[in-house]
Amino acid sequence: MDERVPTTIGELGEFALIERLTARLPQGPAVRLGPGDDAAVIAAPDGRVVATSDLLVEGRHFRRDWSGPYEIGRKAAAQNLADVAAMGARPTALLLGLAAPPETEVAWVLRLADGLREECAPAGASVAGGDVVRAPQITLAVTALGDLAGGPPLTRAGARPGDVVAVRGRLGFAAAGLRLLAEGRDGPAELLDAHRRPRPPYEAGPQARELGATALVDVSDGLVQDLGHIAVASGTRIELDGDALPVPPVLGPAGLHHVLTGGDDHAFAGTFPPDVRLPGTWTVIGRVAEAAPGTGDVVVDGRPYTAGGWDHFRS
Amino acid sequence: MDERVPTTIGELGEFALIERLTARLPQGPAVRLGPGDDAAVIAAPDGRVVATSDLLVEGRHFRRDWSGPYEIGRKAAAQNLADVAAMGARPTALLLGLAAPPETEVAWVLRLADGLREECAPAGASVAGGDVVRAPQITLAVTALGDLAGGPPLTRAGARPGDVVAVRGRLGFAAAGLRLLAEGRDGPAELLDAHRRPRPPYEAGPQARELGATALVDVSDGLVQDLGHIAVASGTRIELDGDALPVPPVLGPAGLHHVLTGGDDHAFAGTFPPDVRLPGTWTVIGRVAEAAPGTGDVVVDGRPYTAGGWDHFRS
Repeated sequence: MDERVPTTIGELGEFALIERLTARLPQGPAVRLGPGDDAAVIAAPDGRVVATSDLLVEGRHFRRDWSGPYEIGRKAAAQNLADVAAMGARPTALLLGLAAPPETEVAWVLRLADGLREECAPAGASVAGGDVVRAPQITLAVTALGDLAGGPPLTRAGARPGDVVAVRGRLGFAAAGLRLLAEGRDGPAELLDAHRRPRPPYEAGPQARELGATALVDVSDGLVQDLGHIAVASGTRIELDGDALPVPPVLGPAGLHHVLTGGDDHAFAGTFPPDVRLPGTWTVIGRVAEAAPGTGDVVVDGRPYTAGGWDHFRS
Repeated sequence: MDERVPTTIGELGEFALIERLTARLPQGPAVRLGPGDDAAVIAAPDGRVVATSDLLVEGRHFRRDWSGPYEIGRKAAAQNLADVAAMGARPTALLLGLAAPPETEVAWVLRLADGLREECAPAGASVAGGDVVRAPQITLAVTALGDLAGGPPLTRAGARPGDVVAVRGRLGFAAAGLRLLAEGRDGPAELLDAHRRPRPPYEAGPQARELGATALVDVSDGLVQDLGHIAVASGTRIELDGDALPVPPVLGPAGLHHVLTGGDDHAFAGTFPPDVRLPGTWTVIGRVAEAAPGTGDVVVDGRPYTAGGWDHFRS
């Protein structure tokens, strides 16, 4: 008889692992039925549900030598919760799919769950279900759900010429931190930390809806690229003022580049009617113009910014 | 200039791939906003949404030499749609996360989408969103949503002593087909096909709810194991009649074993009040009794059936 306490998920087994996980994942008020059945049941008081799903693959979206499980959990939750908020909705629940090798430590998985839980809680959501399977490599599949509270979804297609463009949240911090890690250099803790754990201001989503936003995205692939999605979907051009962009000195000499192209901070960028009165948490960075073929979908001080974005297969 | 038509997803690129995929995925009436934005918006007229998520990993949940992409797509959709139906709900939408190596053929991915679409359509659902990322191995993350139409969710915890136990759908077919494939043997097409593509009778979920079912599961891990979840959650024992189990000759000499332990057919097994009048599509296979510690959660002709179930990490 082996009396050791199981330290790997292979030793612990699927069902015991799920028990240990669910014990760490208290259910919020929106969860009508939590983990342990064929499916979860989540409140959708609006009569519609916002739903989004992302995959995070080890070595591509996170590295275990650069980030601990807690931070990976927070980051995985954050990018999905931010997608829900970017529709103008409030997050209600998350589902976690975890594929992992049997030799993965139980403690690593439990800390991952802690990270998911603690990113969800302030956003108003909880981890209500999921799946664990065996695989040679760690992959996380996160689904987030949310509620629109009676409002219209903030799509990418609603921007109109004359609208102002504004952002709320940090830009470029995660990219600057990632570059430090990639180059093996030390640097400001707030940059390294921003890569490991984004801090999306989720409240910006419902707030933008209340302020009458015409379009909204979260900045996951880079400001120029994500605003480009609004420009294309809306049939408009977006003109950014270089001087209006928030480029704090901590971002270093490539600060402007990080602000324009850096993903993963999950700031919110939206378009608002010209007469909007924005609170101080939002920074106006440009305006929406008529599309002008051949000039680019997004211009900075009148010129296209073509430093490239992020293509998950090509880059 | 390379004028070839891209044949791999790496050549095609993420955004073009998503365009090709969404062109093949028409949206059903429950989809308020389909692919192409930060998140999808799905109707949830009940005010609650049923949500479930599964991961399928190449080499573990499917093999590309045993199943084509179309069948893998149908199977991936089926196992999630069946989880929704097992709550007594009607499926409304699916989200697909696809992790794949860049050398994966575009045609393979498009056929996968065809399989997902065609499994969804008769169940009333459509593929409303998702994510594609690069990874060394193909992994599918499927999330399914559904609507309860005002009824109570059929959990595992509602079975009461005196209830009858009944099943609808095939049992043991997929397991018998899997064994043929694993042994490299030929055999009845309906067994091989059952492994490649389950045929869950989704209608059984809402039907069971209307018939007053007290508990319901879909048989994904094996009849004994899945009914064991009902027994444990309900604090009861489930007594099966060996003679009442549907064991068609095509299942071969190990037929009873496949029926009791074979997963992946996604039949529906439920418990109903003693006075229920079940339509002919359901087969009564036993009854619910008081829990009797030490005798097992599920017994067949009075004895535990301990041929083992399925643990995703251990087996």
